[in-house]
Amino acid sequence: MSKKSKVTPWEVEIKDENDYERLIELFGVSKIDDNLLEKIKKHTNDLHILLKRKFFYAHRDFDKVLDSFEKGEKFFLYTGRAPSGKMHIGHLIPFILTKWLQEKFDANVYIQLPDEEKFWAKKVNDYEKIKELAYYEAKIIASLGFDPNKTFIFINSEYIKNLYSAAIYVARNINFSTAKAVFGFTGETTIGLIFYVSLQIVPTFFENSYPVIPCGIDQDPYFRLQRDIAEKLGYKKASTILSKFVWGLKGPYTKMSASDPSTTILIDDDFETIKQKIMKYAFSGGQPTLELHKKLGGNPDIDVCFFWLRVLFEENDKKLKELEESYRNGTLTTGELKEYTALKINEFLEKIRKNMKWAENNLHKFMYDGKLASEMWNWKFEPKV
Amino acid sequence: MSKKSKVTPWEVEIKDENDYERLIELFGVSKIDDNLLEKIKKHTNDLHILLKRKFFYAHRDFDKVLDSFEKGEKFFLYTGRAPSGKMHIGHLIPFILTKWLQEKFDANVYIQLPDEEKFWAKKVNDYEKIKELAYYEAKIIASLGFDPNKTFIFINSEYIKNLYSAAIYVARNINFSTAKAVFGFTGETTIGLIFYVSLQIVPTFFENSYPVIPCGIDQDPYFRLQRDIAEKLGYKKASTILSKFVWGLKGPYTKMSASDPSTTILIDDDFETIKQKIMKYAFSGGQPTLELHKKLGGNPDIDVCFFWLRVLFEENDKKLKELEESYRNGTLTTGELKEYTALKINEFLEKIRKNMKWAENNLHKFMYDGKLASEMWNWKFEPKV
Repeated sequence: MSKKSKVTPWEVEIKDENDYERLIELFGVSKIDDNLLEKIKKHTNDLHILLKRKFFYAHRDFDKVLDSFEKGEKFFLYTGRAPSGKMHIGHLIPFILTKWLQEKFDANVYIQLPDEEKFWAKKVNDYEKIKELAYYEAKIIASLGFDPNKTFIFINSEYIKNLYSAAIYVARNINFSTAKAVFGFTGETTIGLIFYVSLQIVPTFFENSYPVIPCGIDQDPYFRLQRDIAEKLGYKKASTILSKFVWGLKGPYTKMSASDPSTTILIDDDFETIKQKIMKYAFSGGQPTLELHKKLGGNPDIDVCFFWLRVLFEENDKKLKELEESYRNGTLTTGELKEYTALKINEFLEKIRKNMKWAENNLHKFMYDGKLASEMWNWKFEPKV
Repeated sequence: MSKKSKVTPWEVEIKDENDYERLIELFGVSKIDDNLLEKIKKHTNDLHILLKRKFFYAHRDFDKVLDSFEKGEKFFLYTGRAPSGKMHIGHLIPFILTKWLQEKFDANVYIQLPDEEKFWAKKVNDYEKIKELAYYEAKIIASLGFDPNKTFIFINSEYIKNLYSAAIYVARNINFSTAKAVFGFTGETTIGLIFYVSLQIVPTFFENSYPVIPCGIDQDPYFRLQRDIAEKLGYKKASTILSKFVWGLKGPYTKMSASDPSTTILIDDDFETIKQKIMKYAFSGGQPTLELHKKLGGNPDIDVCFFWLRVLFEENDKKLKELEESYRNGTLTTGELKEYTALKINEFLEKIRKNMKWAENNLHKFMYDGKLASEMWNWKFEPKV
């Protein structure tokens, strides 16, 4: 990593693509290569855009999980998000892939909403508000179309009694120096956040089969620790499918910050807002004037609209290639590109808007009384040792 | 403290009475003096032997709590014990005083059984067994005669959802360096034990009035931390009533270890066992031979039987004085003293044995559906800020 780059679940700084390569070495994970994609495709027929375009670019043991799957052994999916009440389009990414994998592999999905994490990390100050907002986020996530009988969405503080039955074991098997080495804890770290490590690991023990975790690569440290203790407790080591980080509107390798509208498209944004934000803020690879643009052409590689089209919103490879070419040769203007991108993003969010009512009506199944959820409210950890 | 003396909740070493004096300075607590005892007596008429003989020898703010009580402000009592399945007579001491205070001040009592603590401290290895045994210990504690409608006994892993609503706040307000300074945590400390600090503090917020905590002085560090954060969360600073440590059978300032029969009288021991253990193991202040004893007399100050008679089993001051005198002048032999002590201990334990059936029948009230317990299963922390 470049000296200024940092990656813990609470501090993420990536400066360029090389940093992503170095993370692979640093964490000891594998690249998602065409061999793995072919292996996936054997079961799924097609490839999700997030895999095809390699926004999920690294993994741990997913090849082994697929080998087992071929022998008839199922796996389960687990992901999550610390609620804050403001979700942007980047936040959806792990859920989108998870939903697709659920469908293709008929897998149970567990979604953790750790309402205490950001409060303990001192990233938010009003816990009661966060807790309230967690239900809203649960609805947004559900609206992606998860199976309400094969998906369990839980808020940590609600589900803590069940989680605790395993956290008692997990938190015994991790000592402070290990946690410190992995997460960079300091004297200032709250004793809550130190313990939280165990709570993010617990759901990997919800079933005896392989846990597969689609998530940002910054979350990998939790699951490295999981792999140190899983077999000792009689469970399987976690497999991760790891994504890069999305770009904020301000340009390559900037962040979307839900609290700064000039950087982000929120799930709640309507079409007008999306369009205005992109027109006004989205960093462009185009030239300063229309005249120059038509003459010299633009650079899609550093353009935020192209980033989002590539990663998520333009599934059609041919169409994407055409757009890139016409941008490079100056026939596609920045204004046109922005308009198109706003339309594509809106098209995607429109599906969520339409599903929100369904999600609201079915939330009780995801959280409390669907087939999987009702089983999980009786779940209790049993170490298999 | 002498250099070798250590006091944290997990490491206790006291070499002599001076160490107790130094602890008072080190912790910044106050001595329980005759003024305070008089102040207590105003409300209680008599004084419990554990106070009168000053085995509870230090306190924090109990004088202020009594001042408030005189103005009509109630307080509540809180104590507890990490279950291990083997309780010795020393373990009863905080509960005995707590029960007496409940009766005299008509106070609610909260008793925490943290089933995870010793597992996280790596003092026990079989968590499931400990959890099972916790119910047995709850019965023993209840058998001391607590009021089943004013006493709530809870096992942490059962009651965690309620505890967690406050632990979220407590664990945010304590950082690692503070916890380390107070408890001497190292890199080897499990992340569970670090978090546990918050769980022992939580019950001090069960009511808005003063929490009063009778406990061994080794537990004071938790409540010093509590005092740093209580008012910030809108609650009252904890008051502690602090005891010395009991002597094991092997002699002055040794420990009772439930796992070593030669050091300890267990609650389960029958009269024959008690007598045999005392005869065989109890360190004596008498002379090596009966002849010498009759000639030179014994020393009650270093005698384990006298320790226990003074602290708990001989309430009659006059009788105790007579015993001491006749031991010093050699007319009371070690054999007679041991026999008498065994009888007194047995007399005390017989009350517990007799009450066990009642405790068993009423345990549900203490734990689940008595007046206080049923209220507490609906309790949720509300920071008053």
